[in-house]
Amino acid sequence: MTAAVKVAQIRAPAAMRAAVLEARAAGRRVGFVPTMGALHEGHASLVERAAAECDDVVVSIFVNPTQFGPTEDFARYPRTLAADAALLEPRGARWIFVPEPADMYPPGAATRVVVDGPARPFEGEIRPGHFAGVATVVCRLFHCVPADVAYFGAKDWQQTLVVKRMVCDLGLPIEITVCPTVREADGLAMSSRNAYLGVDERQRAVALHEGLCAAERLWQSGADVAAVELAIRQPLEARGIAIDYAAVVAAETLEPLPVAGAEPPAIALVAGRLGSTRLIDNRLLPPRSRTR
Amino acid sequence: MTAAVKVAQIRAPAAMRAAVLEARAAGRRVGFVPTMGALHEGHASLVERAAAECDDVVVSIFVNPTQFGPTEDFARYPRTLAADAALLEPRGARWIFVPEPADMYPPGAATRVVVDGPARPFEGEIRPGHFAGVATVVCRLFHCVPADVAYFGAKDWQQTLVVKRMVCDLGLPIEITVCPTVREADGLAMSSRNAYLGVDERQRAVALHEGLCAAERLWQSGADVAAVELAIRQPLEARGIAIDYAAVVAAETLEPLPVAGAEPPAIALVAGRLGSTRLIDNRLLPPRSRTR
Repeated sequence: MTAAVKVAQIRAPAAMRAAVLEARAAGRRVGFVPTMGALHEGHASLVERAAAECDDVVVSIFVNPTQFGPTEDFARYPRTLAADAALLEPRGARWIFVPEPADMYPPGAATRVVVDGPARPFEGEIRPGHFAGVATVVCRLFHCVPADVAYFGAKDWQQTLVVKRMVCDLGLPIEITVCPTVREADGLAMSSRNAYLGVDERQRAVALHEGLCAAERLWQSGADVAAVELAIRQPLEARGIAIDYAAVVAAETLEPLPVAGAEPPAIALVAGRLGSTRLIDNRLLPPRSRTR
Repeated sequence: MTAAVKVAQIRAPAAMRAAVLEARAAGRRVGFVPTMGALHEGHASLVERAAAECDDVVVSIFVNPTQFGPTEDFARYPRTLAADAALLEPRGARWIFVPEPADMYPPGAATRVVVDGPARPFEGEIRPGHFAGVATVVCRLFHCVPADVAYFGAKDWQQTLVVKRMVCDLGLPIEITVCPTVREADGLAMSSRNAYLGVDERQRAVALHEGLCAAERLWQSGADVAAVELAIRQPLEARGIAIDYAAVVAAETLEPLPVAGAEPPAIALVAGRLGSTRLIDNRLLPPRSRTR
């Protein structure tokens, strides 16, 4: 057994960019996993996928203030850098990029990247400005870390659509790979925000996964969208979880499914609140032939 | 005398990007002059500056629909590609990048780069959405043409501030060089829109330059901002030019000059309309010590 190579922390964007460009100039494929820290096995799976597909892996840790609303959990969002570094050591990360807000938002910063289309419904309605904050910081991060490919988790499905839309529209020279959601033993999607849950809340939180599983079964039986959406809601209502949305839509656009004709790939989306903690989850629905 | 090397036209963004990256990988410095075509000696001066400072020069020609308002001159904006190519041949351009709108705006495009700060006053107020259109297309162009340095004309001073702000905020890896305005013999700033002017309008248009020259003289004599702004207006009013704005502000922020204390670098800005033609001009004002 050999000791893991110690992962190097880099704060300055210019130094980070230079390191990535030097690796790529030497013919190395570089993968990038942008995160807000508070890393869990979901993040670890992204890093392992990146390490399997690339020669060098960069993980950024930056709790981006502009993607939090004024009443949201920016201040209490967990900061666990020492534990994050320890988690990353054995997973194959070469660099951790840890900029400070002043490195990412220069004095007088006045530029936002605003995405419409897939950013508009669901999280976009409930969290105004959230996706502009995400798109802006990801755009900047992609210039700090000019990797070949970036890895995002499917748990934040709408975010992956927003990032892919921005990359396409602005011609950002990076591939986007979306990786499967990692779950706890009972099916709860891993999330840094799960740490907020009390013991009772943690038990009830499995209702999001239960609703999505029920939705998939109904979907495969040929049920219509309204019935499938109701199936998502039922376990949340049974456990007293406030529902922000529970919907079945086109997976690539988040638009309503057509009422007739070929059915595009579909996804079930759910968001709910347990006390002051907000959780989201989703499930891609398998293709089916129309039953009516 | 040797014949000029024929400048190569490239339409596909991927091919353009590959050509620039190949040149840079070979150690060549690449300069970029983004334009909307209808090239004149102002553009030529940018290309010559780029050719003097770089090994290879790319000129893009793209009449960007998103920076025109619904009532503006997108449809009648001059398209003169053959003449443009002939002008560029002897000035040292290696490539002309001539994308079509579908190359720049993929199907379903939904991303805008929105700049606040220097984009807010003056042109930003009069042309809502204009600078978002500029910032978005320039951001995308900078990914299509990943040059070392891009050249912009000082005639569109506010645009240069918006582009520099965006480059700083998003961390775009490119230098911005601003080059002096080129003028006709009577002082009219060169502009593709001068072609719209009738003979009488063309004669009256010199009033913008006259107003700015008068402003500079008054400024150097120690006059206050209001008096200098009045001096800009007078020749325009005398020639029946409708004034959109005539202002003296801080050159780097476009904010009002402080009423006391050290005076930052200042600029006089003017915009006026002759019939359906809108012209802008500006003049950097020399530093002076406060007279009161």
